[in-house]
Amino acid sequence: MAELPGVTITGASGRMGQMLIRQVQASDRLRLVGAVERPDHAWVGQDVGAAMGGGDIGIRVTDDAKAAISAADAVIDFTAPAATLDFAAHAAAAGAVHVIGTTGMTDAEIAQLAPFAEKTVIVRAGNMSLGVNLLTQLTRRVAAALDADFDIEIIEAHHNRKVDAPSGTALMLGEAAAAGRGVSLAEVSDRGRDGMTGARRRGDIGFTAIRGGDIVGEHDVMFAADGERIILRHVASDRSVFARGALKAALWGIGRAPGAYDMLDVLGLGDAG
Amino acid sequence: MAELPGVTITGASGRMGQMLIRQVQASDRLRLVGAVERPDHAWVGQDVGAAMGGGDIGIRVTDDAKAAISAADAVIDFTAPAATLDFAAHAAAAGAVHVIGTTGMTDAEIAQLAPFAEKTVIVRAGNMSLGVNLLTQLTRRVAAALDADFDIEIIEAHHNRKVDAPSGTALMLGEAAAAGRGVSLAEVSDRGRDGMTGARRRGDIGFTAIRGGDIVGEHDVMFAADGERIILRHVASDRSVFARGALKAALWGIGRAPGAYDMLDVLGLGDAG
Amino acid sequence: MAELPGVTITGASGRMGQMLIRQVQASDRLRLVGAVERPDHAWVGQDVGAAMGGGDIGIRVTDDAKAAISAADAVIDFTAPAATLDFAAHAAAAGAVHVIGTTGMTDAEIAQLAPFAEKTVIVRAGNMSLGVNLLTQLTRRVAAALDADFDIEIIEAHHNRKVDAPSGTALMLGEAAAAGRGVSLAEVSDRGRDGMTGARRRGDIGFTAIRGGDIVGEHDVMFAADGERIILRHVASDRSVFARGALKAALWGIGRAPGAYDMLDVLGLGDAG
Amino acid sequence: MAELPGVTITGASGRMGQMLIRQVQASDRLRLVGAVERPDHAWVGQDVGAAMGGGDIGIRVTDDAKAAISAADAVIDFTAPAATLDFAAHAAAAGAVHVIGTTGMTDAEIAQLAPFAEKTVIVRAGNMSLGVNLLTQLTRRVAAALDADFDIEIIEAHHNRKVDAPSGTALMLGEAAAAGRGVSLAEVSDRGRDGMTGARRRGDIGFTAIRGGDIVGEHDVMFAADGERIILRHVASDRSVFARGALKAALWGIGRAPGAYDMLDVLGLGDAG
Repeated sequence: MAELPGVTITGASGRMGQMLIRQVQASDRLRLVGAVERPDHAWVGQDVGAAMGGGDIGIRVTDDAKAAISAADAVIDFTAPAATLDFAAHAAAAGAVHVIGTTGMTDAEIAQLAPFAEKTVIVRAGNMSLGVNLLTQLTRRVAAALDADFDIEIIEAHHNRKVDAPSGTALMLGEAAAAGRGVSLAEVSDRGRDGMTGARRRGDIGFTAIRGGDIVGEHDVMFAADGERIILRHVASDRSVFARGALKAALWGIGRAPGAYDMLDVLGLGDAG
Repeated sequence: MAELPGVTITGASGRMGQMLIRQVQASDRLRLVGAVERPDHAWVGQDVGAAMGGGDIGIRVTDDAKAAISAADAVIDFTAPAATLDFAAHAAAAGAVHVIGTTGMTDAEIAQLAPFAEKTVIVRAGNMSLGVNLLTQLTRRVAAALDADFDIEIIEAHHNRKVDAPSGTALMLGEAAAAGRGVSLAEVSDRGRDGMTGARRRGDIGFTAIRGGDIVGEHDVMFAADGERIILRHVASDRSVFARGALKAALWGIGRAPGAYDMLDVLGLGDAG
Repeated sequence: MAELPGVTITGASGRMGQMLIRQVQASDRLRLVGAVERPDHAWVGQDVGAAMGGGDIGIRVTDDAKAAISAADAVIDFTAPAATLDFAAHAAAAGAVHVIGTTGMTDAEIAQLAPFAEKTVIVRAGNMSLGVNLLTQLTRRVAAALDADFDIEIIEAHHNRKVDAPSGTALMLGEAAAAGRGVSLAEVSDRGRDGMTGARRRGDIGFTAIRGGDIVGEHDVMFAADGERIILRHVASDRSVFARGALKAALWGIGRAPGAYDMLDVLGLGDAG
Repeated sequence: MAELPGVTITGASGRMGQMLIRQVQASDRLRLVGAVERPDHAWVGQDVGAAMGGGDIGIRVTDDAKAAISAADAVIDFTAPAATLDFAAHAAAAGAVHVIGTTGMTDAEIAQLAPFAEKTVIVRAGNMSLGVNLLTQLTRRVAAALDADFDIEIIEAHHNRKVDAPSGTALMLGEAAAAGRGVSLAEVSDRGRDGMTGARRRGDIGFTAIRGGDIVGEHDVMFAADGERIILRHVASDRSVFARGALKAALWGIGRAPGAYDMLDVLGLGDAG
């Protein structure tokens, strides 16, 4: 039997890095072949399983990113923009799939990825959860299929420590709904409804934010007309869904033609729009 | 077999009056014995069934409220404060149960009902739906049972023509939650959440308002802690629930000792608070 | 200003016929030009508005289907198979769009529509609600996009008089989910879960049926994996949604090339599958 | 400042024991003073924090249950019936509150607790989650307040590894609903609805079981009438809620008069029934 495809994880000691390592270890379709940290990190040289507080798993944390990436079929990378650009060079040179969950990249940094995407597969997404990406796509399609007889409301719920409202994902869903309708979200957005609001304006997209307990993240996109409603709902109950999305992207990318992809491509929804 | 208890409906031509007449006609526990309108109304003298656009039902609309109420075991009254005070005098004189759904009564007007409540049963409530009254009661009890580890959020959804937010019923539920906790709603109310809100303040009661389509009225009271949530939910799908509550109140009141009651008494929850 | 497109309604005295007439009257994009009943019906010759218990609207009920259909841009038809075939001939001769909500047609009867669809637009669907048709399409797409790590459950709720479980629409959604996965529903269907069931079998599609009150119809398609869930939900709160779907189909069909269409075409989702 | 009340945890190495220890450590109202395991267990003599895979916390695991319980204000005990009876004797002798989450106790074993409850506070419950206990109480009250015009449906959702349906908690809720109505659950239970069921029988209590993903546990009790519904809903998102309930019970019991209590007493709902 052939070996499973090998994956290297960067930023191994971080919360997301550790979650990715556990997910790869638990997978029956991928195996862990590398764990990368920066040169001065205390974990370098230790077995990554032991460093995470468990038993040895036979993979030592390394600061030699180039070697660890060259030994892998894919590298999964939730780190920082500068490091991600370095890793992209190594992945392109080695032909390893590069799955990028790093956030905060500027347009200029993203543009620097382009030459690497000519040599290998890059999958990059601001939110790696399969469900949220799928929900975004569905929202755009449904908004395009229905007219403004259907009022669109985006309702999200998060834990009580969240400091902003609505959530970034809610806004992303709102953008998708506006795009489906061919309007600008800024012109139809209705937020913070309170007091004597008057009747709802036709075509508006409303947002409401619920806060309580330790809710990981729940998003509803409601299309409400007279007599019927469609609700597209996503419930995240565990932050591991972001790691699982990344693994799926890695598996999808192995053996594929070089290029710059996102999670919609991974889900097979990229073209159907 | 004894006859069913007889009911007179005031304001017979109004939307609520017609709905009450239909509900009494459909009931197998009450029968219609009177339909009252004001002296100058076009319906006076007509059969009330025909006036409503159907067949004759053998009850003529009358402007003699005193006679119509005297002939009944109960009168159900969703009219206006001045008329309601007149009807209360007739009901007290006749010993008929007086179910009052009239809104907008001042404290002074309500006080004028007191002497009538010494002679007959008066059931008065701002919202006659069984479900909402029960939900209010449950909300107070649950808020009293749980501490502020449970964040309270009140979420309501209504049709797109509603001009205010949050709904009066949502505020009533918020008052019940605050009373259960022994705090003032004004000091803990969190409405219109939007932008950089900061983390949720412990003890706050949050409100969110969803608007779309022809939603009759939905209210959730959520108590969210780390690891668990309790949600008390009411869904009204038909405005007839207000009429049905009134009929239940009439049945409950017949044969009971005179006094001033509300829907919590009808539900058997008045004392347990 | 040009006149609005004209619509003829067949089966005018039926529950669905009356609802269609009210919807066309309320529309600002269509106008009523004909109302058809069978020759011996009491309504023939009467003004259809008056026959429905309201005021005259200037359209007399006729038993001359051919003339009424010839005068219209579209005919909307929720009647019986034999009548529908007659109306199809008239619509084809006149070039009127034929929207068919008639149920219970055999395959042979459906085949007889084919020659008429060469001459005019025919839109036929077992369920004319926009929302349910859209939900069916979404279900197939999401099932195709996600693997069997996502457990599929179809949950429906209906009123307490419904005699069968699960609902026909729930089964239609199950068929769509199975088609998306490329499996046979019969082999993966899990219904009536009760007692010592053992763990859920991977790949199964589960069905549950809730019954209570006067719920018009609610359907959830849940895709549940570790850590996240997607739920596609439809709530029908008023049976008028079937009439509204038919009007939308009529408007969509006017001016279009002849052919046999369904509601997915009307929604613009027919090809994207 | 006075010291926080001290708690001893039995069965320290078990999944529930470890969760209890973490919760006590995280509490600002209780402190850990003892951790008990059986004499032959590998953890005995080790620091319990280190044994759990973290740093030392200054409490060694002991097999001397008597000493560990005597040193505490309360002992929390999710072990096995025989051990629980031993611990009850120690708790009674020491006057320590005994919180019992042990399941599977026979009526005879429960009876053996009675003499100990004369000397100290015993709080025992099959489910320590505050929310589920509260939901059970609410269900009984609402079922008592509403007549059979309201159809009762109990809907539960759990992960795909659960082997039985409906859940034990769903049945407990069904028992509470039946008790509220004064009927026997066995006579009104409607489970596994499938096929040609006929119309819903008035007064029945229906059960449906949804299975998918890693859902921890969700329970809805729906009361559905014509035109309105009340839904009492509990969502457990983390198994730690059982530990948190136990801590609350311990705090509640300290300083209280001896007796046998359950979680309804802890919630202050024991008498109001």
